[in-house]
Amino acid sequence: MPFSIHVGPNVRTSPFFEATVADGVRSFSVYNHMYIPGNFGDPDGEYDRLLHGVAMWDVAVQRQVELAGPDAMVLAQLLTPRHLGGTRPGQGRYVPLCDHDGWLINDPVLLPLSQTQVWLSIADSDVGLWALAIARERGLDVAVTEPDVSPLAIQGPLAMEVAEALLGDWVRALRPFAFRETELDGIPLVVARSGWSKQGGVELYLRDGSRGTELWERVKRAGAPWDIGPGAPNDIERLESGLISYGADMRRQTLPANPFEMGFGAMIDLSAGHDFIGRAALERIAAEGPARRRVGVFLDGPPVDGNRQPLTLLRDGVRIGHVTEIAHSRRLGRNIGVGLAPADLGDDATGLSVGLADGERAASLTALPFLR
Amino acid sequence: MPFSIHVGPNVRTSPFFEATVADGVRSFSVYNHMYIPGNFGDPDGEYDRLLHGVAMWDVAVQRQVELAGPDAMVLAQLLTPRHLGGTRPGQGRYVPLCDHDGWLINDPVLLPLSQTQVWLSIADSDVGLWALAIARERGLDVAVTEPDVSPLAIQGPLAMEVAEALLGDWVRALRPFAFRETELDGIPLVVARSGWSKQGGVELYLRDGSRGTELWERVKRAGAPWDIGPGAPNDIERLESGLISYGADMRRQTLPANPFEMGFGAMIDLSAGHDFIGRAALERIAAEGPARRRVGVFLDGPPVDGNRQPLTLLRDGVRIGHVTEIAHSRRLGRNIGVGLAPADLGDDATGLSVGLADGERAASLTALPFLR
Repeated sequence: MPFSIHVGPNVRTSPFFEATVADGVRSFSVYNHMYIPGNFGDPDGEYDRLLHGVAMWDVAVQRQVELAGPDAMVLAQLLTPRHLGGTRPGQGRYVPLCDHDGWLINDPVLLPLSQTQVWLSIADSDVGLWALAIARERGLDVAVTEPDVSPLAIQGPLAMEVAEALLGDWVRALRPFAFRETELDGIPLVVARSGWSKQGGVELYLRDGSRGTELWERVKRAGAPWDIGPGAPNDIERLESGLISYGADMRRQTLPANPFEMGFGAMIDLSAGHDFIGRAALERIAAEGPARRRVGVFLDGPPVDGNRQPLTLLRDGVRIGHVTEIAHSRRLGRNIGVGLAPADLGDDATGLSVGLADGERAASLTALPFLR
Repeated sequence: MPFSIHVGPNVRTSPFFEATVADGVRSFSVYNHMYIPGNFGDPDGEYDRLLHGVAMWDVAVQRQVELAGPDAMVLAQLLTPRHLGGTRPGQGRYVPLCDHDGWLINDPVLLPLSQTQVWLSIADSDVGLWALAIARERGLDVAVTEPDVSPLAIQGPLAMEVAEALLGDWVRALRPFAFRETELDGIPLVVARSGWSKQGGVELYLRDGSRGTELWERVKRAGAPWDIGPGAPNDIERLESGLISYGADMRRQTLPANPFEMGFGAMIDLSAGHDFIGRAALERIAAEGPARRRVGVFLDGPPVDGNRQPLTLLRDGVRIGHVTEIAHSRRLGRNIGVGLAPADLGDDATGLSVGLADGERAASLTALPFLR
């Protein structure tokens, strides 16, 4: 019997909550202290729709941490190892955030609305408290707040058809992570070429929480010719595509990892000389070379049904790493997973296995992503 | 139809997870990125057991932020407005935490194991990130980590019978919030006279997550003569008892409140001269007097079925405050709630109402707690 979840006031509901209930949402999880839809009763169909059609997702849980004031970009640069020189309004960037020891604490998308107003569209940790502490302890002239902003994602190979029908043909010209402030029938939005899948599409950042149902219905109507339907971020697709899930793949408290281990090395140019939190630690790690690397894992045997906790990666029966999430990929006809292995372990390593609840499975490594 | 919740790896399971599943847990919520049981299929019976017998709760979600090192107490004092002079190992204290502007960001219990090892048993926000940022930005000699510690609560009027049978008669001598490090059949524990109810009892802080099922079974056996059964923190009892729920009653991002508004004024002695984050803001608020005060609310009409979001408190149809959580109290035979009202509004104020999803309910104010 599945477990139920009580919807109570200690966790927030999204502005799209009522609309998703009306459209038959069946399960929820909690992310950034807010309910997020899990599925609408047809997990296989929802996966197929993401892969071959177009889906709409309530991803209001991607809360925004707003940095506003003269020092907004100063603070943003302090928070991420990625060099933000050349950052211009309207172009978003993926910006891993580290603590002073170089451990990742979140991996948001930075959206610079202007030089004095920046959003961090965050993963599942209260990094707003972190940003606030840094800002105030350093005496920066910047306010750190959570504005009334809630993303709705349109994802899938037909997503841009819907986006164009909804917003106009300018939306097709947006480069990856580029965004524009606009309105839709008077509903204030930021529209970004982004989303937590590799199937393409946009995210509509709703800037007025009282108009969630209205926006949801508007997207639904515009997408009807392409048979749009409700869904949610899909764990199988994200594994196939090599997307990272903060909370599942790493979390400072329980699964600490640094940016080099997670494969972010190419976006961290230490020679740029910028000051950021964790620089000394990352310089040391870069000099020594990271101890671990992110890997894709194939697991032998019958289809797996996911996992509840991180799994042990073994070689000849000895623990050498961990696998953070597994799933059966219908597209590949194989069990796949992601995790961290010793940096010097090649993809051709033999003698590997993964410890599941019901015993060990023989395993092998592969490069990420599994599918492009 | 109730919504279901998927148990996946992006949210942690508690060390007691398997034991609660075996004992028939039916619902979960998420708190501090970890699953917490909601009920075991008999909400009324579970409430009665808490009020008249003894219940055992998986409250592993009360994660510990450990401050360890020579500056542990220095950091602890910086984090809370409460004066920590006279704090001694073995005696816990309730310590609201504020940001630089005096807004509450968590309300943990401080457990000083020694002068150089202190736990904050936290409510639902990542205040570990906050503590870490403050420690490192101020150059303090203290490590901020999350140790392997997971509380199991025994609560109810018969709880101390079970605690004595389990641990010995010394446990009865513990004063409120006092604690002791001990072992039970070799299982390392901290035992505290505490718990998130007003029905009395203890919390067993398990210090080895691999022994969760063992501890759960041990408590169950010891409690069998008193008909112990599984349960969870109870929203109705907490409202009746006037307990505060960070996340429901206040949250920095969405329901900001300061300690004076929440009724913590008596524990904040600004004349003690100690340095802490938010002092300037709290001095100003203390001088001006807080604008709002915490109130109990009676709602007229038929029994309510709770609420999903904060509700509006109105006077003569005008918004004057909010009610954060409501429930029907069987003990009182009335609908009750808690919220914030203007500081100068007396309990005898007339013309009040609360906006529910299905319309307004006439309301009146009362002192907290509803029941002792």
